[in-house]
Amino acid sequence: MTRPLFPTASTTDILEKGDVLAPRFDANGLIAAIATHAETGEVLMFAWMNDVALERTLATGEAHYFSRSRNELWHKGATSGQIQLVEEVRIDCDQDCVWLKVFPEGDGGACHTGARSCFYRVVENGKLKVRE
Amino acid sequence: MTRPLFPTASTTDILEKGDVLAPRFDANGLIAAIATHAETGEVLMFAWMNDVALERTLATGEAHYFSRSRNELWHKGATSGQIQLVEEVRIDCDQDCVWLKVFPEGDGGACHTGARSCFYRVVENGKLKVRE
Repeated sequence: MTRPLFPTASTTDILEKGDVLAPRFDANGLIAAIATHAETGEVLMFAWMNDVALERTLATGEAHYFSRSRNELWHKGATSGQIQLVEEVRIDCDQDCVWLKVFPEGDGGACHTGARSCFYRVVENGKLKVRE
Repeated sequence: MTRPLFPTASTTDILEKGDVLAPRFDANGLIAAIATHAETGEVLMFAWMNDVALERTLATGEAHYFSRSRNELWHKGATSGQIQLVEEVRIDCDQDCVWLKVFPEGDGGACHTGARSCFYRVVENGKLKVRE
């Protein structure tokens, strides 16, 4: 058995009030990750991380995710140039979601469609409207 | 069979570029939801929605989620007073995550711990520090 990269909180109190980073990975070994622009606050993307992706993000200061479609570690921008420099990492109350404040490098796009943010459409009267 | 509340996109092009709201609920019938403060941009919470929660959110302008722990529709604030008035709803490229910009009512807390945001802790040198 390999040693886990992160500890497990033994009580809800430690999980919610403690100073120990004890992320709760789901049944697939993943934790949700929200990336916002460190300056504008815009939500850029929503993705997933496994333990290695979170460890690499914290160690390198560049966002790493886990690609569910490719089933592999995904160093964001390694091929596209759209590196995300991590300004701050936060975790939520029950430690099943992390929030990264990032500075996008390259052309500033976070989305595979080329958009600055994956959330380029607003829901209005039941329809989607592009509004970047 | 009941009629689905939302259509399914038949192609990736329609999913990513179309004007049809065709949310992709996961195997548990859920879609990820990020709520940010409409004014400050702060990420307040991360939760899940089923089809009814999303429909109710769009129809009423108040955030509804699906509580996985209680396995039921969760009208945020119905008991706590922490209603979230929805200013804008966005959806991401592959329509598996929605972003709500909200105005929190009541005491302004989004978190069950009483904090304004569930993300009240920063990861610093491997430890968590409270910074609201």
